[in-house]
Amino acid sequence: MFERIMPTVLDGKIVASQLITKLKERVASERAMDPSRAAPQLAVIQVGDNPASKAYISRKLKVAAEIGILTQHVQLSSTSSEREIEEAVARLNDDSSVHGMIVQLPLDQSVKSPESWVNSLLDSIHAHKDADGLATANLGKLFVGESTSSRWTAAIPATALGVMRLLQYYNISPRTKNCVVIGKSRLVGNPTAQLLLQAGGTVSVVHSQSPDWSFLTQRADIVVVAAGVKHLLKPEQVSEKVVLIDVGIHKDVGGLSGDAHPETCAKVAAYSPVPGGVGQLTVACLMENLVELWKRQKK
Amino acid sequence: MFERIMPTVLDGKIVASQLITKLKERVASERAMDPSRAAPQLAVIQVGDNPASKAYISRKLKVAAEIGILTQHVQLSSTSSEREIEEAVARLNDDSSVHGMIVQLPLDQSVKSPESWVNSLLDSIHAHKDADGLATANLGKLFVGESTSSRWTAAIPATALGVMRLLQYYNISPRTKNCVVIGKSRLVGNPTAQLLLQAGGTVSVVHSQSPDWSFLTQRADIVVVAAGVKHLLKPEQVSEKVVLIDVGIHKDVGGLSGDAHPETCAKVAAYSPVPGGVGQLTVACLMENLVELWKRQKK
Repeated sequence: MFERIMPTVLDGKIVASQLITKLKERVASERAMDPSRAAPQLAVIQVGDNPASKAYISRKLKVAAEIGILTQHVQLSSTSSEREIEEAVARLNDDSSVHGMIVQLPLDQSVKSPESWVNSLLDSIHAHKDADGLATANLGKLFVGESTSSRWTAAIPATALGVMRLLQYYNISPRTKNCVVIGKSRLVGNPTAQLLLQAGGTVSVVHSQSPDWSFLTQRADIVVVAAGVKHLLKPEQVSEKVVLIDVGIHKDVGGLSGDAHPETCAKVAAYSPVPGGVGQLTVACLMENLVELWKRQKK
Repeated sequence: MFERIMPTVLDGKIVASQLITKLKERVASERAMDPSRAAPQLAVIQVGDNPASKAYISRKLKVAAEIGILTQHVQLSSTSSEREIEEAVARLNDDSSVHGMIVQLPLDQSVKSPESWVNSLLDSIHAHKDADGLATANLGKLFVGESTSSRWTAAIPATALGVMRLLQYYNISPRTKNCVVIGKSRLVGNPTAQLLLQAGGTVSVVHSQSPDWSFLTQRADIVVVAAGVKHLLKPEQVSEKVVLIDVGIHKDVGGLSGDAHPETCAKVAAYSPVPGGVGQLTVACLMENLVELWKRQKK
């Protein structure tokens, strides 16, 4: 079904750029229908000065501006107390001009807070302002299919949504397909598996405790690798018919590389490159979430 | 690893009876430490007169009494309005003597309400009183692992929990094992897959849209079949080493039968019979949820 002589490159840039254009039009047309309506606004909370976070945030602010989304960049020092960070979230919850917010992870704190506190911080974001869809209650909505149905009630974790948007653009439906997700994280692996399942795929999840999973990937039609291990997926582990989505991103001598070995990408029917694949979609899908949240909020 | 000459019967009755005894002791010891503390109380909302529901409820009330759990059986007529059913839930939410409630499904209404309303009814149960763990927010907690960690904050859908308790009793750990769940329902398949994944299993979910899944079940160490299709799982689809958990229940000429073909059960290393397997655990696990909710509620 996906057979080709040369692998198709699933170009995240094209898909992201098309999505950004659509979102820009959607915001403009909603506002044209109701000129008194305020522009959508995204707030980004940053704690500390992590250089990677800085780069991600500046990209988010830039794409938001392109679409017509106002932004508020809340910068807290790395010495901020847990209470101060909680108060920043609470203030944005109460601010009706803000339609969605994200807390940029990982937090760059001088005294690192436990993961359970970080999770409860995410859970303190109002469900209808949770632009990353990472609050527990919103993951529940993903789990029961509310965020993927016409009853859309919650944001979907942006990277997982990006995987689906990439597949959709290239008319690759997971329905009746054997799908394998490598990695079971809260941010990527687990939500991606749910989305593929709801889209009708047969879905296997493998992870670091899986002793032998080649028999799964060898039979797969679609493989999403989100393990965070450079060049993990070897060519002998997949067939030539596979569509490969690489969510990994690692610094390498020649620039960036992913969770799939370059020879794996060379062999398969289609793959998303690193860079230029899913990474491009993550920011665009965050904006898709924000625009959806904005549309549903009272003016 | 699970090789035996004759299949081991995973006896749900023994496991349920041991769990019920433990819960009885737990309630007694908590109350002995604090004699002023009220007994745990479970409320069961029944709409209409569905005979199967009646039988399930009377079994729940009986097991609750055995453990020392008070019960309140709220019976609404099949002509009750949606508003009247909602009010029954609201009243129990506000009643501090009630520690958990369930709405017996399916509702036997003379005018059938849409599924979306039933879901929002379940979601209106306070998270800390949701004894079935089926509210969206509680499924989110399951999804992020909060209900399975030492941070236990939510009930787990009782049948899925029953599957895990059955495996635990027989020292069958899903860790590093190939697990296949057949069925992706909100009540059973999907939560069971999450629990197996969190327990370290490699987990595949197959369902009615999966065209070919024998290659998965043939390689599996543990198969949970919750498809609602009588005798779906055929002997040639599994190996002799497999542990088979059958969640199906169907009326048959000779009594009851499950989702696995009798020849499949005869072939495998271990299986849970129908009746006498997981079904026995469901009620006991509902009580486990209720006792946990009670322990965590303010006196």
